[in-house]
This record gives sequence, C-alpha cells and structure tokens, in this order.
Amino acid sequence: MAEQDGAPFAYEGLDRVIHERARLGVLTSLMARPKGVAFAELKALCGLTDGNLSRHLQTLQEAGLVEVTKGFERNRPLTVCRITEEGRARFLEYLEVLEQVVRDAAQAARGAPAGAAAKA
Amino acid sequence: MAEQDGAPFAYEGLDRVIHERARLGVLTSLMARPKGVAFAELKALCGLTDGNLSRHLQTLQEAGLVEVTKGFERNRPLTVCRITEEGRARFLEYLEVLEQVVRDAAQAARGAPAGAAAKA
Repeated sequence: MAEQDGAPFAYEGLDRVIHERARLGVLTSLMARPKGVAFAELKALCGLTDGNLSRHLQTLQEAGLVEVTKGFERNRPLTVCRITEEGRARFLEYLEVLEQVVRDAAQAARGAPAGAAAKA
Repeated sequence: MAEQDGAPFAYEGLDRVIHERARLGVLTSLMARPKGVAFAELKALCGLTDGNLSRHLQTLQEAGLVEVTKGFERNRPLTVCRITEEGRARFLEYLEVLEQVVRDAAQAARGAPAGAAAKA
C-alpha cells in the first residue's frame, strides 16, 4: 500500500468529480474518442437517461473536464461531447490512484482469504 | 471493454455503498484485517474524523457489510469494526468491476495518447 501522511487508505487522489459512477463511465468513453462522441451515443454507451447525462455533463463542464458543442449535421442538430486536455490529464492522475486502490484491495483480499474471517 | 446490455460503460456493478471514496478506504482496511480494527486505528488509516468515520460505518452497517462491537480492553472502552462475510463477498464482486474499469480506462488512454485530442 502507498503511504500518504500516515493514512494509507485515505485515497485523497480519488477526485470526487471523476469518481462518481456515471461520470467515470462518461469520461472513460470520452478518453477513447478524442474527436468527441455525440450526446445520443454517449447516452447509450453509459446507459444513462437524457436528464442524467445532461446533469453529469454540466458537472464535468463546470469542472473544466469536458466541453460540449452544439452544431448541425445534415441540417439536424448535433451535440458533441469531448474531453478537454485538462480533463485528460486529471483523468490519468485519477487512474493512477484507482490502480493503487485495486492493488491494495487485491492484496488485502489475498492476505485474508475467504475463510479467514471465521478464524477471527 | 466488457459489453453489458449494450452499455459497456454503465458499470452497474460499482455498488454505490462501496464505491464512495471514504467507504472504499474503510472496507479495504477491514479486508486486510478480518479480526477487526479498532475505531481509533481505522480513523488514522483512512484519514477520517470521528464524525465522518461514524457516519460511514453506520451506512456500511445498515447495508450489512460491516459490524461494530463495543467492548472493553484493560477497563477502557474499545470499539472494534469488522467486515462481515457478506461484506467480504460484495467487496470482491465490486473489486472485479473496478478492475474492469481500470482495464477499460487504461485501454482508452492508450488508444488515444496525450496528443490525440489536438488532432481531433
């Protein structure tokens, strides 16, 4: 486990804006597609409703992680969502902490196998 | 990425009770110590205040993931927190989904390296 100020399990690097489940899905989708993803497709990828996706996109925009542009394609309105450079950098930082959580948790689980609790 | 009902980034298995940052630290600490961890030590491990730890423990108890016993050691009151068998099982399920998130995100990040956004 990583030591940080004597609180190895504080995980302060788990940025709350990114860590929320739906936003984690949105950002992972957008990381893979730097040219952007249309709103309707993003909704399907993340299994979100219009209202939920809109709300989470607003939070991500306010934090500077995502930009949303409204335009037209073949005379039809098209909303495209993209991750910003800052969003990409902060997501990669978050990912490092998340990888640490997975390592800590896997180690904790191995150190105390399923039957161990019964012996306590 | 794992397909699930056509919404590969929905991550429905990211149980909200477990996913919250502070509770993730608490459960990881308890996974490693099936005999239990004293309240004061758990607080230090997770970098939480008395009030925050109490609040999160209550949420975890209500979900059946953690048990808290109040006793005495050398005539001094001692509160010990333990993960339950159900808590251990649900944490391991959660961990599988979290590992999938890390794989998806790392793959997304590799597929679109740092400079890719500029080319979009």
